[in-house]
Amino acid sequence: MTDDAAEPADKEILRRTLDGRWYDVRERSRKIELNAYAPPAYEMDTETHRAAVLERLAQVSASGLPQVGFPAAQGGADDTGGGMIAIEMLGFRDLSLMVKSGVQWGLFGGAIQSLGTAAHHEQYLPSVMNLDLLGCFAMTESGHGSDVQKIQTTASYVAETDEFEIHTPVPSARKEYIGNAARDGRLAVVFAQLHTPAGEHGVHALLVPIRDESGEPMRGVTLQDCGRKEGLNGVDNGRISFDHVRVPRTALLDRYGHVDSDGSYTSPIDNANRRFFTMLGTLVRGRISVSGAAQSATKMALLIAGRRGLARRQFERAGGGEEVILLDYQAYQRRLLPLLATSYALNFAQDELCGRIHDLWSGEGTPDGRAQRELESRAAGLKSTATWHALATIQASREACGGAGFMAENVLPQLRADTDVFATFEGDNTVLLQLVGKGLLTNYSEEFEDLNAIDTVRFVADQFVGAVIERTAARSIIESFKSVFSDTDAVLRDRAWQVMMLEEREKHLVDTLAARIKKGIGDGTEPAEVFNLAQSHLLHAGRAHVDRTVLESFVDVIEKCEHAGTAQLLGTVCDLYALSLIEADRGWFLEHNRLTDTRAKAVASAVDDLCRELRPHVATLIDGFGIPEEWVEAPIAKPDSIS
Amino acid sequence: MTDDAAEPADKEILRRTLDGRWYDVRERSRKIELNAYAPPAYEMDTETHRAAVLERLAQVSASGLPQVGFPAAQGGADDTGGGMIAIEMLGFRDLSLMVKSGVQWGLFGGAIQSLGTAAHHEQYLPSVMNLDLLGCFAMTESGHGSDVQKIQTTASYVAETDEFEIHTPVPSARKEYIGNAARDGRLAVVFAQLHTPAGEHGVHALLVPIRDESGEPMRGVTLQDCGRKEGLNGVDNGRISFDHVRVPRTALLDRYGHVDSDGSYTSPIDNANRRFFTMLGTLVRGRISVSGAAQSATKMALLIAGRRGLARRQFERAGGGEEVILLDYQAYQRRLLPLLATSYALNFAQDELCGRIHDLWSGEGTPDGRAQRELESRAAGLKSTATWHALATIQASREACGGAGFMAENVLPQLRADTDVFATFEGDNTVLLQLVGKGLLTNYSEEFEDLNAIDTVRFVADQFVGAVIERTAARSIIESFKSVFSDTDAVLRDRAWQVMMLEEREKHLVDTLAARIKKGIGDGTEPAEVFNLAQSHLLHAGRAHVDRTVLESFVDVIEKCEHAGTAQLLGTVCDLYALSLIEADRGWFLEHNRLTDTRAKAVASAVDDLCRELRPHVATLIDGFGIPEEWVEAPIAKPDSIS
Repeated sequence: MTDDAAEPADKEILRRTLDGRWYDVRERSRKIELNAYAPPAYEMDTETHRAAVLERLAQVSASGLPQVGFPAAQGGADDTGGGMIAIEMLGFRDLSLMVKSGVQWGLFGGAIQSLGTAAHHEQYLPSVMNLDLLGCFAMTESGHGSDVQKIQTTASYVAETDEFEIHTPVPSARKEYIGNAARDGRLAVVFAQLHTPAGEHGVHALLVPIRDESGEPMRGVTLQDCGRKEGLNGVDNGRISFDHVRVPRTALLDRYGHVDSDGSYTSPIDNANRRFFTMLGTLVRGRISVSGAAQSATKMALLIAGRRGLARRQFERAGGGEEVILLDYQAYQRRLLPLLATSYALNFAQDELCGRIHDLWSGEGTPDGRAQRELESRAAGLKSTATWHALATIQASREACGGAGFMAENVLPQLRADTDVFATFEGDNTVLLQLVGKGLLTNYSEEFEDLNAIDTVRFVADQFVGAVIERTAARSIIESFKSVFSDTDAVLRDRAWQVMMLEEREKHLVDTLAARIKKGIGDGTEPAEVFNLAQSHLLHAGRAHVDRTVLESFVDVIEKCEHAGTAQLLGTVCDLYALSLIEADRGWFLEHNRLTDTRAKAVASAVDDLCRELRPHVATLIDGFGIPEEWVEAPIAKPDSIS
Repeated sequence: MTDDAAEPADKEILRRTLDGRWYDVRERSRKIELNAYAPPAYEMDTETHRAAVLERLAQVSASGLPQVGFPAAQGGADDTGGGMIAIEMLGFRDLSLMVKSGVQWGLFGGAIQSLGTAAHHEQYLPSVMNLDLLGCFAMTESGHGSDVQKIQTTASYVAETDEFEIHTPVPSARKEYIGNAARDGRLAVVFAQLHTPAGEHGVHALLVPIRDESGEPMRGVTLQDCGRKEGLNGVDNGRISFDHVRVPRTALLDRYGHVDSDGSYTSPIDNANRRFFTMLGTLVRGRISVSGAAQSATKMALLIAGRRGLARRQFERAGGGEEVILLDYQAYQRRLLPLLATSYALNFAQDELCGRIHDLWSGEGTPDGRAQRELESRAAGLKSTATWHALATIQASREACGGAGFMAENVLPQLRADTDVFATFEGDNTVLLQLVGKGLLTNYSEEFEDLNAIDTVRFVADQFVGAVIERTAARSIIESFKSVFSDTDAVLRDRAWQVMMLEEREKHLVDTLAARIKKGIGDGTEPAEVFNLAQSHLLHAGRAHVDRTVLESFVDVIEKCEHAGTAQLLGTVCDLYALSLIEADRGWFLEHNRLTDTRAKAVASAVDDLCRELRPHVATLIDGFGIPEEWVEAPIAKPDSIS
């Protein structure tokens, strides 16, 4: 960063920029008061912790914020984006509370909203919204987590009584890890294979009471407690089994599949696979919320480690002089600052994604299919990237704080334990990244989500003509760049060059992936094996796509930032983000002649330089996260307690 | 691996090979019976957990194993290596117990043994060994963790009463995170700046009672509880402050510094810095034990995830067929098998290091200084590498197990939480790797450990003539290899090529590091800044050195393995280890023309291929770890409970 900015970066403008489109919801979230925990959560036993989180849930409910995403007809505000932001903000404060909120309003309420019809909305949503009715989202089974389409719970229509019978036919059909199931949930959205006299119709969701008013399990329902977990112990996860449990026919959430009183099945979507993935698509909100909450937790970790690194000194620089501030060490900067830059980048991508789902879902009627598929892919990619980033950053922050970071009072252990499962729930990250890769291979064609490995291979063999890089936000800016790309130092900080590098990597990875698949098929290799042997390649393509789109979101925000000093600081952060990515994968860029030896070495030096340039701005960049001081509980991060 | 071996690998021979030189101690350790915990540790409150671990400590003591490292004169067996192995083995079962054992016998007892003289040994070691006297190792202070030489606690000789006065002069001199301090410790080895009327003599250790027989703090001693931690909650970490506490003159552990009754100070080591690092060198055992215990925990994690991956299926390969075993997916193999190979490699390096310290310390008199410095460097490097490997592997294992990995009953969360602090205690990993780098730059010269940044820079500028690669174990084998290095596929699996690649990287990194420092000095840059700007480079050199020496240990073991089938399997594992390392740093190898584009891509393919080749041997390789079935507590890893 050069020093010729007319004005320095402004932390309020920075915060406003990070707050993005839903800054008002964020500001309102910052004012929600929550009960203090005494003792702190890390000293509570499981039952006490669960009760304490339930109390806080009521306080969140009273704010009215999580409800804004529900229909205006039921007292919501049809504000899809705002509802997700409200949950994401809880990630700064209490991840158990965030997850319990996500289960109640996002998954349970969201399923009724998205999969149900008007009668369901009217009957249930008001009490879901105000917490009179706590519920579960019972999809995962012990035998099927990633491959949800193969769950084994059944819902069979019984014509005699005009009911469905919900049943767990084998042990592996037991519903597993279900939030709200062990203690608080009364009604569950149960995913099951729907059977009518005419046959099987695939996975559908039904509303099944699991506890009565007094909290006892309903007849035929067996509830178990998952017990202690690595983290999120304020959420009561449990297991649910059904023994021929009857519910009325109207319990079927029937927006995408309806059973008439004569037992006949109808659906607006003929193809069963397509229907399944349409229903699953309503889950995209959950993934976006998890991505956002992971980012909130990450920012808190960076605040803690950053403040510690700014205050603590160790080792004299020269005999007798004052000891050196930790953040003045290159190794310390290297550990934290690229992660800080990445957190900025992901923040902007998250805001863009929230806007995208909001706009898509706020329109009338069913959203455009292709746009919806691209949205799902974007959410899958950002969720996997942001949650892995959270784990890496919280860990780096813990280590940067040494022994202090291991003490429960300093919050990092709780952040780490609570976010760990984010990498595998609401979609396993590895599986989600494969979904991104499949989207790229098929250019989000109508079939892509319901293509299994073999179908995908065949689709690619038949139809792939070349990778399509669809720029989203930053097209105009990037195309306006002109650069001769001669001087290495200038090139490395040329935004157009950075974007081009990531675009070329993505395009090359997708094209060569397709070529590899075609070659495998041509060689007569079994299609499933072709796909399996290309798995690393597919995952790499998925990551490359996410990196590129995240960078574009960042570029877009910088372009729109009207405060020169702030835009300049953001530009330096963006340089660090982009060059860190290129450095991390420089083996690939070298192998594919996108970097010369000299330039690759220059990238590493530039990352060192950028860390040093950003060093004086670390406090400002942390302030930009907009974390209220009263939310900072770690003693080592409090302004007056650093040694 | 080709299939022409006359005999398949044998899991018993594999286990015996991994058990190494102290296989008898390992076998005896496998027979120690420990009380079952009820409820499990993850459901215990802190005080219950601490009490339960103390009970188990007595059972470990009764085995007689941890005591073998103590002098025969006090009832030990002078078996330095065996004593460390006994503690390392506890890492499979209970990491709180391992750490509490390490505090009691390794740090507390080890300091009395190494820093004290005959009178101390006679008076204290028997009761330390049999647990009549529980103690602390009070070195770290809240203001000084990595830079221990600057601790601020004082020990001042008071001639009038022939005593030392132990004092905490400032808040940052408070002893911090001290194991056994919150509950059980009665005597502490306290590190303090020694003052006599003649002046200051630097850091020395003294025996200071902190609790009386009834458990009350001694007068002038303030004890605080660190409270809940991320993990290791069975260990009672606390804080200790001293208010003018008096101890007799004989409390000074005076092997390296003695104060006479007339107050005069004498030491066999004139140079105060040298004296300090000699005392610190006695800590090397602790680091080796931590490295070993981290490896034990890592192996348990691999057992859990490996068995799960062998048993669980997800997604049909083709319509209607059986679902695919997780470990048949390339992505799943890629996540776990390179880590499994690395665990094998580190195991052999650990055994070699144990042998080295054992032989060095078992000789008569003071060990050779240079050998001792190289040993310290080796221990620092392996400790940092093995503990980071543990964190990465336990995390990968957790994610590979999905939601089941997040459940406390499945052990992985406890392993992860307990090992986390290993990355920063007994020496922060980043600081330790810098020590390795400094050893390389100075070729373990007499001064190297007490060189601060500035001195190191000056030393390099004046004396560095070129990197010295001293092969340890594998010299003869490697030199006997002859290879034309023509065909890429053959080259990649040529052990001589693999070793050469790692040697050349190390040598180049050290040489260019020195050149960079010399250039910085020549340019007139401030020496401290020269050092700081080279920090990433220094760390890379340290890592490269560890990688190379670990590979050599592996090569040595294969050469000595007399069972052809087992040696062949180990050879494939070694290929995967070596090529994974090269793949991970292939950016460097490409930049420095040690790999062509084509060969770099071939390395990645070879890693894929090796994972597939090892897939049928995963169960055997896990069995090789020699973990008794009754130690496997995770339900998902029990043979009969997989779904």
